[in-house]
Amino acid sequence: MYKRMFIGDVLAKAGDLEGSKVRVCGWIHRIRDLGGVKFVIVRDRTGTLQTVFKKSELGEEVLEELEGLREECVVCIDGMLRRAPTKEGFEVAASSLTLLSRPLEPLPLEVHSSLKAGLTTRLKYRWLDARNPLVSGIFVLKAWVARKFREYYSSQGFVEIFTPKIVASGTESGANVFPVLYFDRVAYLAQSPQFYKQFAVIAGFERVYEIGPVFRAEPHHTVRHLNEYHSLDIEVGFIESYHDVMDYVEGFFRKLAEDLREVEDVLEAHQAPRIRIPESGAPRIPIRKAYEILESEYGKRIPYGEDLDPEGEKLLGSYVREKYNSDLVFVIDYPWRVRPFYAMRKDDEPEWTYSFDLLFRGLEVVTGGQREHRYERLRENLKDKGLKEEEFQYYLEFFKHGAPPHGGAGMGLERITMQILGLQNIREARLLPRDTERITP
Amino acid sequence: MYKRMFIGDVLAKAGDLEGSKVRVCGWIHRIRDLGGVKFVIVRDRTGTLQTVFKKSELGEEVLEELEGLREECVVCIDGMLRRAPTKEGFEVAASSLTLLSRPLEPLPLEVHSSLKAGLTTRLKYRWLDARNPLVSGIFVLKAWVARKFREYYSSQGFVEIFTPKIVASGTESGANVFPVLYFDRVAYLAQSPQFYKQFAVIAGFERVYEIGPVFRAEPHHTVRHLNEYHSLDIEVGFIESYHDVMDYVEGFFRKLAEDLREVEDVLEAHQAPRIRIPESGAPRIPIRKAYEILESEYGKRIPYGEDLDPEGEKLLGSYVREKYNSDLVFVIDYPWRVRPFYAMRKDDEPEWTYSFDLLFRGLEVVTGGQREHRYERLRENLKDKGLKEEEFQYYLEFFKHGAPPHGGAGMGLERITMQILGLQNIREARLLPRDTERITP
Repeated sequence: MYKRMFIGDVLAKAGDLEGSKVRVCGWIHRIRDLGGVKFVIVRDRTGTLQTVFKKSELGEEVLEELEGLREECVVCIDGMLRRAPTKEGFEVAASSLTLLSRPLEPLPLEVHSSLKAGLTTRLKYRWLDARNPLVSGIFVLKAWVARKFREYYSSQGFVEIFTPKIVASGTESGANVFPVLYFDRVAYLAQSPQFYKQFAVIAGFERVYEIGPVFRAEPHHTVRHLNEYHSLDIEVGFIESYHDVMDYVEGFFRKLAEDLREVEDVLEAHQAPRIRIPESGAPRIPIRKAYEILESEYGKRIPYGEDLDPEGEKLLGSYVREKYNSDLVFVIDYPWRVRPFYAMRKDDEPEWTYSFDLLFRGLEVVTGGQREHRYERLRENLKDKGLKEEEFQYYLEFFKHGAPPHGGAGMGLERITMQILGLQNIREARLLPRDTERITP
Repeated sequence: MYKRMFIGDVLAKAGDLEGSKVRVCGWIHRIRDLGGVKFVIVRDRTGTLQTVFKKSELGEEVLEELEGLREECVVCIDGMLRRAPTKEGFEVAASSLTLLSRPLEPLPLEVHSSLKAGLTTRLKYRWLDARNPLVSGIFVLKAWVARKFREYYSSQGFVEIFTPKIVASGTESGANVFPVLYFDRVAYLAQSPQFYKQFAVIAGFERVYEIGPVFRAEPHHTVRHLNEYHSLDIEVGFIESYHDVMDYVEGFFRKLAEDLREVEDVLEAHQAPRIRIPESGAPRIPIRKAYEILESEYGKRIPYGEDLDPEGEKLLGSYVREKYNSDLVFVIDYPWRVRPFYAMRKDDEPEWTYSFDLLFRGLEVVTGGQREHRYERLRENLKDKGLKEEEFQYYLEFFKHGAPPHGGAGMGLERITMQILGLQNIREARLLPRDTERITP
């Protein structure tokens, strides 16, 4: 007895299965009718395969079903696997056909050419767009990135945590948070698991990670921002300095670079290059040095003490690519004024912080640093930022009973996916994006 | 040169490390001062270890630090590992001490006896409570359950998805959802990824899983409910019947049962027994049969056509434990009136559905079934439930362009953790529970 198999598995074992009966199920990708013979290409998540119906050899019932077939019908097809001059090298000589579901109306988007449509149309009919192998590959790669993240940090002694997304306050102030009506009071959606991953370190878990949704009520409409995305978060205690955190971040990217061949199909389809990280490590450039480089090399001026803008990030990305053959660069020691209150200020220069961003091919994909773990310093930081201590009282409490030095990082899963594949809009890396205009589908 | 190691790793390699210098870091669990000698027990996430300070052998500086030590100070201690008549069989003859952080006030909760406090106090000072190894073990086990879930479903060809938690409507009606102010309109927090995991199947991913937060605005205050928890979700296309879905659910529990020894430390500490599943499979009992069993065996009456109540679940759990030596029982064919509109009704008995709950030691931990994938039937189902088609229009659209038969299940991560360890309140299995009274810490 044979069972239905994924097309990818059939092709992987095609040598052994040649001449045997197989069953494939999926959607009809393409149909070509040559009169006496009908070629039906079936598609599932793992690949496409040609099936061939020779009409003179089929019974009445199959012929009838065959007549009504069109693209995106859902079918199971049984037949014998044989060699063929197709892309896959094999095809199925079909003997029976089971029609499971059919489109009820003309398709608003053609699957095999969905990328020709505008992004708005594609996102509107995303369940059709995502059937395009070029598109589904993006999400297969995204799941792979998440898997590598867990593998790497588990191997480094990190434990997974599950923190609440309904919170009593934002991590900075009331800005950029979505309010939630929580029974009879107002709560907020977490902008990041920042407070709670620190909580977990202080609660003794010491090295923790989480993959979860984060929510940003930023009204921007750019190709780099989403209002809901998935964040890869780590936090680690007993660090000597923020360089330990950068080492952990770099270790993960190195793991991605090393194992990238596991997803080579997707990379090839997107013509994505390998990830380049120098043996000696990605450069770590103080932002004050970055200002100088941008000005002297590119005539690009960033106001002293400001964050880099997208153009500045891009230029710095080019610079390290040429100079260090690196796709990664850590920009370190960000100004205190552009960092949140929980950042640790430099001992000798309190207007600068032990913090970093990681640019990957010229785009910020990670933000991190050492956190202030000293209760009195935290209170001072709050005051200096003009924030009300009462609002953060529940957070301050964590630091009263023995808090180790610690730091961590938050990494954008969609941004990493986007940069690996060279996508032009972050919405491409989110199956169901939420932005100022979209809450459906 | 030696580096700081986790205590668990020191103990695992103690044979090799005996006589060598080691560094351990963590919190002070206990202190015993015998005058000339001070015993300091250090604790990290992986274990506890005795360190011994012989005062006559220490310098002025170390002695001074030592004087100020108290429980929950954060320290690193260097010394030589040697055999000792302690629980661990080894101790550290300490030579130096680094104090990283100290409590600023008397501890509101003693870590080693935190379980003696009431749950309200424990949750209020959760960062102290979770340092108790009995408590942190719960979360180590929880992370392990999540890992097993991903391992098992990945091995079965499932791909991870990341669906939005901000949604345009609830999965059933306006009830039990938390409203979110999303820019200038009202959205909701997803009660489950139900619609979007179905979307992902229809979009061609076919077999998908997700671990993510779900939000239930239920005002209950019970030991079995949380208003925010993590759900383990699967959805799978091309099923023959809901038995395929149950097979996938059972496969996961079988994997948990088989690999349980990987977390035997936690199980032993909680005196938790192994998970019993008969070789031949967990029983699958139609709910109408369950009504009969409960009445004839226990005199427990459930109104015909109603869901089981907690007592009924418990009794049925005892029944299958005695009769089948099984910790699991699937209750199947739930009445249409207690299931949501997307459930598939039985062909021959439309007042009953192709659905199931899984009881684990007498508690519902999984809900699942086959979904209605036929557009017209879905419209009828909505109508029959008195729901407005317009509100679900965006969902109905998914079914217009080729939707395979499919089904799936949602499993409560905290409930599974609770039942494995025999915890009495689900809040024990949530680091930071959210309920009607709690949004902090």
